[in-house]
Amino acid sequence: MLREISQHGPLPRIDLAERTGISRATVTAVTGELLRGGLIAEVPRDPQADEAARGRPRVDLKIDGAAHLIAGLKVSDASISLVLIDFNGVRVADHERPLPQPRLSPDRLTAEIAAGLDALAVQVDRTRSDISGVGVGLAGIVDAPHGLVYWSPSLDQRNVPFADVLTQGLGIPAYVDNDANLVAKAEMIFGEGKDHSDFIVITIESGVGMGIVLGGQVYRGTRGCGAEFGHTKVQVDGALCRCGQRGCLEAYVADYALVREATSVGGVTLTASTAHAVNTILTAAKSGDPTARMVIDRAGKMFAMGLANLVNIFDPELVILAGEQMQFDHLYADAVIEEMQKGIVQIDKPAPAVVVHKWDNLMWASGAAAHALDFVQDHAVTALQDG
Amino acid sequence: MLREISQHGPLPRIDLAERTGISRATVTAVTGELLRGGLIAEVPRDPQADEAARGRPRVDLKIDGAAHLIAGLKVSDASISLVLIDFNGVRVADHERPLPQPRLSPDRLTAEIAAGLDALAVQVDRTRSDISGVGVGLAGIVDAPHGLVYWSPSLDQRNVPFADVLTQGLGIPAYVDNDANLVAKAEMIFGEGKDHSDFIVITIESGVGMGIVLGGQVYRGTRGCGAEFGHTKVQVDGALCRCGQRGCLEAYVADYALVREATSVGGVTLTASTAHAVNTILTAAKSGDPTARMVIDRAGKMFAMGLANLVNIFDPELVILAGEQMQFDHLYADAVIEEMQKGIVQIDKPAPAVVVHKWDNLMWASGAAAHALDFVQDHAVTALQDG
Repeated sequence: MLREISQHGPLPRIDLAERTGISRATVTAVTGELLRGGLIAEVPRDPQADEAARGRPRVDLKIDGAAHLIAGLKVSDASISLVLIDFNGVRVADHERPLPQPRLSPDRLTAEIAAGLDALAVQVDRTRSDISGVGVGLAGIVDAPHGLVYWSPSLDQRNVPFADVLTQGLGIPAYVDNDANLVAKAEMIFGEGKDHSDFIVITIESGVGMGIVLGGQVYRGTRGCGAEFGHTKVQVDGALCRCGQRGCLEAYVADYALVREATSVGGVTLTASTAHAVNTILTAAKSGDPTARMVIDRAGKMFAMGLANLVNIFDPELVILAGEQMQFDHLYADAVIEEMQKGIVQIDKPAPAVVVHKWDNLMWASGAAAHALDFVQDHAVTALQDG
Repeated sequence: MLREISQHGPLPRIDLAERTGISRATVTAVTGELLRGGLIAEVPRDPQADEAARGRPRVDLKIDGAAHLIAGLKVSDASISLVLIDFNGVRVADHERPLPQPRLSPDRLTAEIAAGLDALAVQVDRTRSDISGVGVGLAGIVDAPHGLVYWSPSLDQRNVPFADVLTQGLGIPAYVDNDANLVAKAEMIFGEGKDHSDFIVITIESGVGMGIVLGGQVYRGTRGCGAEFGHTKVQVDGALCRCGQRGCLEAYVADYALVREATSVGGVTLTASTAHAVNTILTAAKSGDPTARMVIDRAGKMFAMGLANLVNIFDPELVILAGEQMQFDHLYADAVIEEMQKGIVQIDKPAPAVVVHKWDNLMWASGAAAHALDFVQDHAVTALQDG
């Protein structure tokens, strides 16, 4: 009921009964408890929205934003991006904290996160201990229900029970997930996926990530390591991937893959930083350099093939290509999406829509906060029920 | 409640209340209706199962098998395989009817199915009109909820509202689905998937099919054309597929693909029938013919790559390789499964189990019957409620 108010409120009690299929008497009893517990508040109904019921004093119910503060953050190569939201999901602060190095020990990363949370809380004149829960997104393979990080480029150890490490170290309940799953969550709650129950989100940064939403839920696989789109194979015995296997999609489309190919024939002169090198390749391709063009074309072809395979398997309503960097424009190009459409099973019905949604690290962090908000809501209700 | 009794019965009322979370009073009221409607029956409790409750007369509830007859059938290239089950899911008759040709008009196929159902009903001294529902499995792309066949190798037209055509032509409510989905359903209800909520079934006959079960439900995609594993691409600009595209898995592993490759170099002398030709290739490979060996090896490699991609995306508990024909032993070989395990993302947790489940067309037909049984149960309950 709390989630219904959270997503669709403010709402009158009668709408809540209709939406949840719960009897009006039960709705009255439960919302009474939620009101007494301070999780929701009554607000006067907008009179224009309720002309038909003149004369009867009516109120809507809304989440009490002040009830809890929730943090969400995304750990990237070079920094941690953090947001603070209220119980209503409204962003009240954000912060970016540089990291000393991309790969840290669990304790060291916890300390960096703690410092980030402190800086975040100060912005709204609160302290870290006022935060009720924190959602953390990491690249890598994460078993979210168990808070276990099998592997992440941000951690120097494998199989870290990172949710426990964070909960202990921060003194706040922490919830860990793969960062692409949190983008999927964010798209579902406040992005392009709002009106869809079945969609796929592809993210490209230094690696390729995927989040799957089926039936309005983030799909996580049974061992917590599904949706590894970047490591699906697009070529038998193909290019060597960072994961140690051959032929992974990532080994053709990630920035390091582009740089590797372009430098292997010496056709493009590159500078030290990978990000800069990728820009050099893209610029060279745009100005007609044939080697650079071939490098970019193959990446696009492989990406289109991988996307078409996903559509052939999932038949989603929508594919969202989400990411921050303009540097992946070549993969999001119309030609690539057309190539993808050609590779899917042809029926007399339109192919799923493909939308490109550019956004920044704060949106990833918001997904993490939304993930934590679910748990905080559940706990708040359980606490009420236990008296 | 009916489904609970169907899957776990015979059950006492109190177990039913516990399993469904419905109050005992409601269970008593509803089961009373089901009893009066003849859908369930009371049976004396096995006294050994209930020693603790001596002295109190107790009964279990079970589905009344005689309440309804349901048919299921699978349309193949050369024949229709049919089963008849009672309301309890127990098989009471089966029948195989040869088809005059693999591809028929919707009306002609309906007439063949009608004749098959007549022959089936006669076996239990009933007529076709005594059958309450029929489930039909077809190869091809099927929008099951709408009973629409976008395309099937068994039909000479595209976009056929085949469930409607059948319901009209047979005088029995008909439910159509992709045949691989029905195998998934059958595996879920009475096969290797019984104890699993998330698994993938791969079927190989003349084409490659896939059924996906997620959270105990067959996943069908949003346009009804997901799970097209056979048409996922394993090679950019690869071998030409029957579907008109290049690089599909089917174009490397289907029987016609093996024959095409083997004959292209003239290394293997083949006879007219494809099935026979495939056996010739397999025999030649086993006896060390290098060309045949290379043909078989590549098929296995491509199949392993496709399977690994599925596991990387879905992270299922279990992969079931299901099929009738020994002729695909080479794809189900240990070496192929090992190759697949190597291609999945490596974490410190065991890879999903892979089981090979050999079965025949009657099992596919049973899946179709189970599909129809769900609808017949729903309708029977609705009919009771409407008085």
